Amino acid sequence: MAEKKLVEAITAQEVDFTQWYTDVCLKAELVDYSSVKGFLVLRPYGQAIWENIQRILDGEFKKTGHENVAMPVLIPESLLKKEGELVNGFAPEVAWVTHGGSEKLEERLAVRPTSETMFCDHWAHVLHSYRELPMKYNQWCSVIRWEKTTRPFLRSREFWWQEGHTIHETREEAEAETMQQLNCYADFCEQSLCIPVLRGRKTDKEKFAGAEATYTIEAMMKDGKSLQSGTSHFFGDKFSRAYDVTFQGRDNKLQVPWQTSWGVSTRLVGAIIMTHGDDSGLVLPPAVAPYQVVVVPIAAHKPGVNEKAAELTERISKFARVKLDNSDNSPGWKFAQWEMKGVPLRLEIGPKDIEKNQCVLVRRDTREKIFVSLDELETAIPAALEALAQDLYNKALANREQRTWTASTMDEIMDLAENKTGFVKTMWCGELECEELMKEKAGLSSRCMPLAQEELGEVCPICGKPAKVSIVWGKAY
Amino acid sequence: MAEKKLVEAITAQEVDFTQWYTDVCLKAELVDYSSVKGFLVLRPYGQAIWENIQRILDGEFKKTGHENVAMPVLIPESLLKKEGELVNGFAPEVAWVTHGGSEKLEERLAVRPTSETMFCDHWAHVLHSYRELPMKYNQWCSVIRWEKTTRPFLRSREFWWQEGHTIHETREEAEAETMQQLNCYADFCEQSLCIPVLRGRKTDKEKFAGAEATYTIEAMMKDGKSLQSGTSHFFGDKFSRAYDVTFQGRDNKLQVPWQTSWGVSTRLVGAIIMTHGDDSGLVLPPAVAPYQVVVVPIAAHKPGVNEKAAELTERISKFARVKLDNSDNSPGWKFAQWEMKGVPLRLEIGPKDIEKNQCVLVRRDTREKIFVSLDELETAIPAALEALAQDLYNKALANREQRTWTASTMDEIMDLAENKTGFVKTMWCGELECEELMKEKAGLSSRCMPLAQEELGEVCPICGKPAKVSIVWGKAY
Repeated sequence: MAEKKLVEAITAQEVDFTQWYTDVCLKAELVDYSSVKGFLVLRPYGQAIWENIQRILDGEFKKTGHENVAMPVLIPESLLKKEGELVNGFAPEVAWVTHGGSEKLEERLAVRPTSETMFCDHWAHVLHSYRELPMKYNQWCSVIRWEKTTRPFLRSREFWWQEGHTIHETREEAEAETMQQLNCYADFCEQSLCIPVLRGRKTDKEKFAGAEATYTIEAMMKDGKSLQSGTSHFFGDKFSRAYDVTFQGRDNKLQVPWQTSWGVSTRLVGAIIMTHGDDSGLVLPPAVAPYQVVVVPIAAHKPGVNEKAAELTERISKFARVKLDNSDNSPGWKFAQWEMKGVPLRLEIGPKDIEKNQCVLVRRDTREKIFVSLDELETAIPAALEALAQDLYNKALANREQRTWTASTMDEIMDLAENKTGFVKTMWCGELECEELMKEKAGLSSRCMPLAQEELGEVCPICGKPAKVSIVWGKAY
Repeated sequence: MAEKKLVEAITAQEVDFTQWYTDVCLKAELVDYSSVKGFLVLRPYGQAIWENIQRILDGEFKKTGHENVAMPVLIPESLLKKEGELVNGFAPEVAWVTHGGSEKLEERLAVRPTSETMFCDHWAHVLHSYRELPMKYNQWCSVIRWEKTTRPFLRSREFWWQEGHTIHETREEAEAETMQQLNCYADFCEQSLCIPVLRGRKTDKEKFAGAEATYTIEAMMKDGKSLQSGTSHFFGDKFSRAYDVTFQGRDNKLQVPWQTSWGVSTRLVGAIIMTHGDDSGLVLPPAVAPYQVVVVPIAAHKPGVNEKAAELTERISKFARVKLDNSDNSPGWKFAQWEMKGVPLRLEIGPKDIEKNQCVLVRRDTREKIFVSLDELETAIPAALEALAQDLYNKALANREQRTWTASTMDEIMDLAENKTGFVKTMWCGELECEELMKEKAGLSSRCMPLAQEELGEVCPICGKPAKVSIVWGKAY
């Protein structure tokens, strides 16, 4: 049977989670591999998810006074080198343009890995007075980082993202911006993507090259591994000084602005797949699903069925993103296909339903069947979508809670590291040596120092010295 | 006076149209030059115009069943070289990536100048059956062409655009798509940008490298020069064959799909500037203006004025894009600034207006003052915007009509070429030699063979041989 074949083509999560993930990316037609190693094609269905993410986030950014701009894709090597930490952090991953047309360039140009340098260079041109501050900019674009190993959405040589870059008159304002954007990301993940996240600060080892502080949202995937899903950086005035960005202050003296940057990427699509997906494929949160409802006529050859299905689709399109599947495929094949693609609700309508003035809604996550009067679609569908979204979130949260452990000795840590995959919460002295020991001995990296600090003991379980902070460890994608 | 200084900083159109254009681009804060020669920064105001263009066009594309995708930004040289005409057309303008990180690449990669090759490569992977056709894709991105001389929006080494790429089962369907998209562009220019355009076909000399036929919309700028503002190409099955794109046809035989591509770019912003702008700066068509109305309080220190201005802004925001300028600058300075930025309507509100329950609307294009009762904003503002848009179009059309001449002898052509700038309509034999002679002798290039063909005589005025077609010549940006 066609529907069986479609489903059988996916590896089960239990068998091989990594292979399951790749299968979903390809079978749900999110991406295709291209002829350039490590570079992806975002196919229409993957791009549609990303566009929904963009639309919602772009609206949030604009509500808080951010403006979009577009910076050049190429960066002169000399400009990239002005800030030492940044260039050291990114140099091994940069793709270099050396020729334009038939000419060899005098100076090679980097395809942007990130655009702090270009924003600073622009601000050095256009900023004059404190009156023009803050400048709160964002751009949607792709960036290139020459990664050794790549996986769809999680790590690829090109990825699509937004990078916000802002400058402010005072340190306090820039710090507040950093936190505001972190919270914007966290709220978006929790409310729109149904993915609970830890909000925390990165250790010095894990922070962005050149940042004074990096904040992160960390999500836990179904397999217990952690995915860094968005970051927000406070730069202090380091880049401003390196790139001569200055302004005339209220005191008429030349001052240096305070800077932030923050970004999320198509990696969020990977987070959606690995948080909600199951052995039948994708499960999409309604807020970003290309189609929230798919209408499947049953016994479509019977008189009136296709007409009714089309009529309902038209009605639903007024309040939800809906797709009518009136192709020649069998209902079973359609069920399997749209389950693979993660459409939150399936609406089945057949001759008997029409007789009873009802239809069947089937939830993608639970397969629950809901019989609904055709008079009540306008309330029943939004309610079912809302319930599904809430359940997706709760299920992801339950998974995280079941896979989060506290440890106060190295033995406990080693036991967890060997037998479990998830978050391990401990206290920490703050020293790099202990962080490196955790990686070496237990194979765990620091995920973040949560903003919601906990009192889990008095000493660092690694070195036994007084602890300064609570921290979360895990295995990361 | 600040407002004088602001306005004086622009060169008058009569004095130097080219310098006027550059002044507007910079003073209206549309763009900034970057540290990379020939590469621009799109500043928030320029980007906002482009985003409005994107939003409207993207909606039109989707209405006709097109889907967005994202293709890799880098193209292997071997892939680019598979279609001979394309690579010959673009090779002199390609930027080459030769190093990734610290490694020299085995094969150099082109930063995309256009993506026909990548779409074909993808389709060769994913297309199997006629049932999957048509595939109607589009992407929004930037492309790079290593131009020698550059000007903001009109010609730069990087520009932002959309490129639509489609494949179809039959030639007829692909040809219909080519024309549909040409008409989509033309309607958008005329209705949303208030720019009348000629719809026509390019000569073989001017067509896209590799296309079977290229169609164009040609706009006339205020100075009489022509701007190619969008193109739609019919490729036949040439690329499909070169890239081995095939499908199983209805007859169960392997077939080759028919292909189109079509694009418009940030060049449209240049078209807006040079079609509608005046000596005070930009004049923006309401459909794409970042702000359609700017509210300026008069005697803002008087009690109640700022409050009333804020209240009106809030009201207007329900039906138009509106900006309240409650900065400390003088009203005169604000008038000049927002005129420079081309905001279609200025709303002035002062103590006397409040007393009379009225406000003053000032049109950017005519400076006409319209006194409006505060009870009628909801109808008066949309009506004023609509009238302005109609007048912008009519004025541009009148300019084009005044600058369009018909010639039937070489003497007439030479006379026009020496004394006028605009469109010269003639008959044409269709031979490349005559087209080259027009360029050499009269300095005129072929703009298009209009779809609306005219009977202007029986012979080609250049060679005297029988004419095949009517054609429009001009000087182009």
